[in-house]
Amino acid sequence: MTTRNDREFMALALKLAERGRYRTSPNPMVGAVIARGNHKISTGYHRQVGGDHAEIVAFKNATTSVLGATLYVTLEPCCHTGRTGPCTKAIIKAGIKRVVVATKDPNPLVNGKGIKELRKAGITVETGLMRAEAVRINESYFGYYRNGSPYIVLKMAQSLDGRIATKSGDSHWISSAPSLKLVHQLRAEYDGIIVGMGTVMADNPSLTVRRVKGKNPYRIVLTSSMKFPRKCHLLQDNADYKTIIAGPGEATERFAGTKQGRDLIFWHIKRKSNGRLDIIDLVRQAGKFGLRSLLIEGGQQVATEFLRANLVDKCIFILSPILLGKGINAIGDLKTSLIADALSFEKYEFSPLGKDCVFVGYPRRRV
Amino acid sequence: MTTRNDREFMALALKLAERGRYRTSPNPMVGAVIARGNHKISTGYHRQVGGDHAEIVAFKNATTSVLGATLYVTLEPCCHTGRTGPCTKAIIKAGIKRVVVATKDPNPLVNGKGIKELRKAGITVETGLMRAEAVRINESYFGYYRNGSPYIVLKMAQSLDGRIATKSGDSHWISSAPSLKLVHQLRAEYDGIIVGMGTVMADNPSLTVRRVKGKNPYRIVLTSSMKFPRKCHLLQDNADYKTIIAGPGEATERFAGTKQGRDLIFWHIKRKSNGRLDIIDLVRQAGKFGLRSLLIEGGQQVATEFLRANLVDKCIFILSPILLGKGINAIGDLKTSLIADALSFEKYEFSPLGKDCVFVGYPRRRV
Repeated sequence: MTTRNDREFMALALKLAERGRYRTSPNPMVGAVIARGNHKISTGYHRQVGGDHAEIVAFKNATTSVLGATLYVTLEPCCHTGRTGPCTKAIIKAGIKRVVVATKDPNPLVNGKGIKELRKAGITVETGLMRAEAVRINESYFGYYRNGSPYIVLKMAQSLDGRIATKSGDSHWISSAPSLKLVHQLRAEYDGIIVGMGTVMADNPSLTVRRVKGKNPYRIVLTSSMKFPRKCHLLQDNADYKTIIAGPGEATERFAGTKQGRDLIFWHIKRKSNGRLDIIDLVRQAGKFGLRSLLIEGGQQVATEFLRANLVDKCIFILSPILLGKGINAIGDLKTSLIADALSFEKYEFSPLGKDCVFVGYPRRRV
Repeated sequence: MTTRNDREFMALALKLAERGRYRTSPNPMVGAVIARGNHKISTGYHRQVGGDHAEIVAFKNATTSVLGATLYVTLEPCCHTGRTGPCTKAIIKAGIKRVVVATKDPNPLVNGKGIKELRKAGITVETGLMRAEAVRINESYFGYYRNGSPYIVLKMAQSLDGRIATKSGDSHWISSAPSLKLVHQLRAEYDGIIVGMGTVMADNPSLTVRRVKGKNPYRIVLTSSMKFPRKCHLLQDNADYKTIIAGPGEATERFAGTKQGRDLIFWHIKRKSNGRLDIIDLVRQAGKFGLRSLLIEGGQQVATEFLRANLVDKCIFILSPILLGKGINAIGDLKTSLIADALSFEKYEFSPLGKDCVFVGYPRRRV
């Protein structure tokens, strides 16, 4: 039985969880509230990876006794020792009487075991309150466990007529300032960013987080050639040692031995029978490396390959209100012969952002 | 001095004017309200071309005396005899004491003369109340007089990635049912529709108004070849004799003499120095023919030529939430080499329509 209090406190816990955005990955965002009846005792949220979990923060923030109180938490409390101790133990020890959990933790190390442990200790546990919202704020975390591999987001900034650059290759800046900020937020939110060599050559991006506060992602360049531009930002802006060169074994080995290759991470990617690098192997390696989410920042070739391989969990298209005409298209050959076969979306939304319109959609898996 | 009553009655008059949409062209939509103080005596609107003007309808609808009353009208009353007699005379004769006009009529036959005549007769005339709204509902009428030539609207229905057809040429139907309805509304709203031969070959459209009630537009095919598909709807669905073939003199002459050419209207279009048909001559002929507004329904070539010639007053892009990949682009070469040179919009809006998102924008004139 959930009450109005329950809903209010869980809504607050969800709001608190959001404060961790851009800092918790690969951990999920979690918020917690401790209350007695309609009286709030304390709150907490998971501030950043390696820091205390939301429940522990709430306990530390409490200035009065929590004995017999109710704990609201947006994700099932953990029962294993990771970077921090198990939250279940702390909850039991604190004398909490009732725990309201929005959703189970999909991580197999927890996944119901936390709830079971609490119940075994005589605590009332209720689950499912505002589950949809709790899953949504951590969609890449849930997606990672659902897929068994990194959650993949494709981001494109294009003109209204679907171009990402003019004929002459100019692409600075198609979108407006608020959209550029969104791009930096996305970088901070996902564990790794993938670009192809075309984008490196055309834009020479740094792929670091600048317009917002947040942690830098791993920056993955998919390349066969290792022919980087002269002053390549990805090689130079690598103070955090997070640039990854993903290419065929022989070429990456050779590049690793050069002066330019210092301080880089190298992944050996298999080739497909057609000679192209195998993006499925790339995703596998990213998963093995510990990345739970990947952001594809382009260009056309990488985007198209991921879409064709049915590997994209979410699309974010920033539509700028300009027409470019002939130039570089956002998306290449998807092997679509009829409109009825077009790649469509399960769920999507168009929303304004500055001068632009942002489309966010979840591609329908094509079988 | 406008009062709250004035604003309310003018807002009502604007609402009434809207009822004439799809039926009044080439006349503007007009609404009228007759009131005494805060008491509404009667209302009227221009229902269709050739019918009574809004003011006259309001007089006919009045069941009590209008002597000394105020007339609210969304456009300056006419003072010339067209298909109907001048409204100014009727207003004076009826003993109206005050006339509130939203905006002057840009038609040089009226353009202030109507207001002058009323004032000369001792009637108080106030102008400018809700002018912006009054201009907006008749934007193509105002645009026609501003341009001195037909107001031109470009409509495109495309996938999110800017394609109007797949590689194999399939384009049925990119947009959803509500968007298709919008297309028929647009056909009813504008005087003429232009398509190129590519669209005739690919889609064999009828370009008649079916999904909504409204008058058929003139249907203009721009073609050099006169090579129509075997069962060409534009030639066959011509019971209203509104299909126009616009092409080079020699070819249209020849086609006019054939059996297929019966009941068609022919325009001889000049060629440019590069051999292509001169769309400026096309627009000129449309104006001479009496068309005040033109809707471009595609395809890529016609759309691109109009954009490049700076002839588009308004763009309507229907964005369908699908990705097509390689196929036919909505827009071809606009000779844009830098993003900064892209065709941008003075004013625009993205709005949802069914499953789609509709972009409406007014291109910035490029000098």
